[in-house]
Amino acid sequence: MSKQFVENITNMEDDFAQWYTDVVRKAKLVDYSSVRGSMIIRPYGYQIWENIKIELDKRIKETGHENVYMPLFIPESLLQKEKDHIEGFAPEVAWVTHGGEEELQERLCVRPTSEVLFGEHYKNIIHSYRDLPKLYNQWSNVVRWEKTTRPFLRTLEFLWQEGHTCHETEEEAIEETEKMLDVYSKICEEFLAIPVIKGKKTDQEKFAGATFTYTVESLMHDGKALQTATSHFLGDGFAKAFGIEFLDRNGELQNVQQTSWGFTTRVIGAMIMVHGDNRGLVLPPKVAPTQVMILPIAQHKEGVLDHAYSIKNRLSSIARVGIDSSDKQPGWKFNEYEMLGVPLRLEVGPRDIEKEQVVLVRRDTGDKFTVSLEELETKIEETLSQIQANLYKKAKERMTEKTTSVTNLEDFQNVLQEGNQLIKAMWCGNSACENIIKEKTGATSRCIPFNQESISAQCVCCNHQVQHMVYWAKAY
Amino acid sequence: MSKQFVENITNMEDDFAQWYTDVVRKAKLVDYSSVRGSMIIRPYGYQIWENIKIELDKRIKETGHENVYMPLFIPESLLQKEKDHIEGFAPEVAWVTHGGEEELQERLCVRPTSEVLFGEHYKNIIHSYRDLPKLYNQWSNVVRWEKTTRPFLRTLEFLWQEGHTCHETEEEAIEETEKMLDVYSKICEEFLAIPVIKGKKTDQEKFAGATFTYTVESLMHDGKALQTATSHFLGDGFAKAFGIEFLDRNGELQNVQQTSWGFTTRVIGAMIMVHGDNRGLVLPPKVAPTQVMILPIAQHKEGVLDHAYSIKNRLSSIARVGIDSSDKQPGWKFNEYEMLGVPLRLEVGPRDIEKEQVVLVRRDTGDKFTVSLEELETKIEETLSQIQANLYKKAKERMTEKTTSVTNLEDFQNVLQEGNQLIKAMWCGNSACENIIKEKTGATSRCIPFNQESISAQCVCCNHQVQHMVYWAKAY
Ligand SMILES: [Zn+2]
Ligand SMILES: [Zn+2]
Repeated sequence: MSKQFVENITNMEDDFAQWYTDVVRKAKLVDYSSVRGSMIIRPYGYQIWENIKIELDKRIKETGHENVYMPLFIPESLLQKEKDHIEGFAPEVAWVTHGGEEELQERLCVRPTSEVLFGEHYKNIIHSYRDLPKLYNQWSNVVRWEKTTRPFLRTLEFLWQEGHTCHETEEEAIEETEKMLDVYSKICEEFLAIPVIKGKKTDQEKFAGATFTYTVESLMHDGKALQTATSHFLGDGFAKAFGIEFLDRNGELQNVQQTSWGFTTRVIGAMIMVHGDNRGLVLPPKVAPTQVMILPIAQHKEGVLDHAYSIKNRLSSIARVGIDSSDKQPGWKFNEYEMLGVPLRLEVGPRDIEKEQVVLVRRDTGDKFTVSLEELETKIEETLSQIQANLYKKAKERMTEKTTSVTNLEDFQNVLQEGNQLIKAMWCGNSACENIIKEKTGATSRCIPFNQESISAQCVCCNHQVQHMVYWAKAY
Repeated sequence: MSKQFVENITNMEDDFAQWYTDVVRKAKLVDYSSVRGSMIIRPYGYQIWENIKIELDKRIKETGHENVYMPLFIPESLLQKEKDHIEGFAPEVAWVTHGGEEELQERLCVRPTSEVLFGEHYKNIIHSYRDLPKLYNQWSNVVRWEKTTRPFLRTLEFLWQEGHTCHETEEEAIEETEKMLDVYSKICEEFLAIPVIKGKKTDQEKFAGATFTYTVESLMHDGKALQTATSHFLGDGFAKAFGIEFLDRNGELQNVQQTSWGFTTRVIGAMIMVHGDNRGLVLPPKVAPTQVMILPIAQHKEGVLDHAYSIKNRLSSIARVGIDSSDKQPGWKFNEYEMLGVPLRLEVGPRDIEKEQVVLVRRDTGDKFTVSLEELETKIEETLSQIQANLYKKAKERMTEKTTSVTNLEDFQNVLQEGNQLIKAMWCGNSACENIIKEKTGATSRCIPFNQESISAQCVCCNHQVQHMVYWAKAY
């Protein structure tokens, strides 16, 4: 197809950041506004979020959780009740100081997360072990006053779900923390075709106010890592700060054990950077707003359009199907739907009608092949599954390729100087070493993976006895 | 059933406002928080909102609209671009003045509605008639700094959808305004069983910045009216303020014609006040989170629980079915699910098992009857339809009963002194008369109904020549 039709996006090898910006704009996912650091999520981007939301909401409900809605504003005094929490969040919240014409007696912050609101509510509604567990979730917008922002990856405001649960025992709460991390890792791998590493954050990287934080980390095309979702075991820190107490089975007063966990619009950024290529977006079929785009060829010829629409109707029960019968040139259309990442293109023209066939073109591989009308449904379903599986496989292979084990800081630095990637290295457990590594290599600890390996007996930084194998990387 | 089980709620005849507060709390719809004027929407309340949202979202998409997401914050300078709009909203917005530790150069308001954000975006993406119409919708939270608040009816923050569209011509935009009012009136009548009056707001009551506002008004149990949803024709006011221009079919530059329309969590308050009674909430089956609640009787007896659960499984494909097999007393359960407004109670005990029957009890009428297991599905579906229809019918009859036509101000005052209701009266079109009526009777103009009648030849207030028949009432 002729060069003139190709949308002008930067090659990812030349400038990955610019490639990303080009894709989110040219694929019409977002637009900017005069609100610094905030994004407009356009219809195509929002449909992707809706598809993710429907799937995740189903899985959250299947695991026994109920949705609620908490206020947007948090009085300053309420936010200050948990010491670590306020220390972590104070530098990045937006403050409301005036309502209408009047100055408020107490500032309200726009929620950066809702632990304290749930804490206050739980104190009101939990009294006995019979009231437990409480398994609540909320879909909402939150605000964090970020200096540098990028669409989906880091914005002043983002959309997410935040789960907040209360339990009788520590064991049960930790089990919940693990269960929800599993829900996240599965939706990443099964639905978004993003391979993840499951593990625990180091103390330095954990959530402000948590006992510990579990995370799913993924690797982008450029070798940088991205924290895709987190699940926190809060212990009884918030429960003590907010006085969430219950009479246990022995009639004794105890604090509840809590968890919280969140999944955000950030994952759309991850999906773009894991699957995208130099032709634009590449969407896994399960999340794609349009799975099959029908392009009638020589559509002015008699019968072509009718035939194309009848195929659309025929396929509408097995896939999300679109059709472009505008008078734009075929070359323009090919490129447009490649830019939008539509998994499968279906071309049908007079010759295909004659031969009782259609032409299918895969977005992920570019493979082009004909399919007889007779086996159309089977082949479409089969091909969409293959695309979904192939995207996951390719991303998994890339992650394996871009992971290197190192045993000393010099190798660590050298490997990263050749190009960003995941580093596996042993760590003594001391945060001083984390800081040195960050300073010397730019990489941060991504997680202590659940799947531990022994690479060497000594910390990659200080040579002292090791505690854990850790994944390190430069990160978004 | 014995008195001791009855939850203590105020009689609506004694104190309607207190009855309302009791119901929203005892039916676990909302809870209060330390955030003044904001509400926590609890799982049961949120499920109701989710059911409404799913149905309305489907209807909004079926009429060709796409969902997007705009920022939460609006820079002060952007809000000020449309003069009438800022005048209307300035007194009731919350202002963010600080981000993290720093004071902002320009204040940001928390969106009270998003016309100006859409305006700015539309200017960017609309250039030609080929880009029109743009039919966007957004599900979001908005904030209005209200002095006096009540759960659902008037809160600092509420949830809603706001549609914002752009069109080539005035005719097309007005058609859209009407179409969306129809979507609202239908979801009220068909889904929420709330009868509505469709009409136009007077100039004094229209949306700040609109050319005119259409409304659906409904009548509460206590004879007060509630504006249930509105649809605005904006003309080209925002388009001029924001420079939203397009090249029309003749190659000439024009401003787009716009609409906006919104439907909020307020409707839950309407539903409570239209259908509720002295036993609590009454939910129309279509919106009820649980449509049938199964209560096993003498559940400790062998086979009862198994049988009850098998009925639950059997019914789960035709209705949303719950079961309460807790060890609480039957009397407590009866009252609890009446309080929660569950449309249908299904009792099944040893004697029913023997007779191959169940007992059904309708929430709306209290009717109790047995149904053979053989015709269980048919009867449940039939009864749920009957309840849905009956709730609408009862509300419609009440509205007819509580509507009085008057031809002079004295009658107007006398009628309202006997009790709140809808007043039909002729009006000259002069806002001075609206103000006098409000002052003397407490009633405001609710709408100029599309279905006009001629009650008299003279304005109910000034005796001048009439322009319209108007519905008046005290309103929420
Ligand atoms: Zn070390
Ligand atoms: Zn008059």
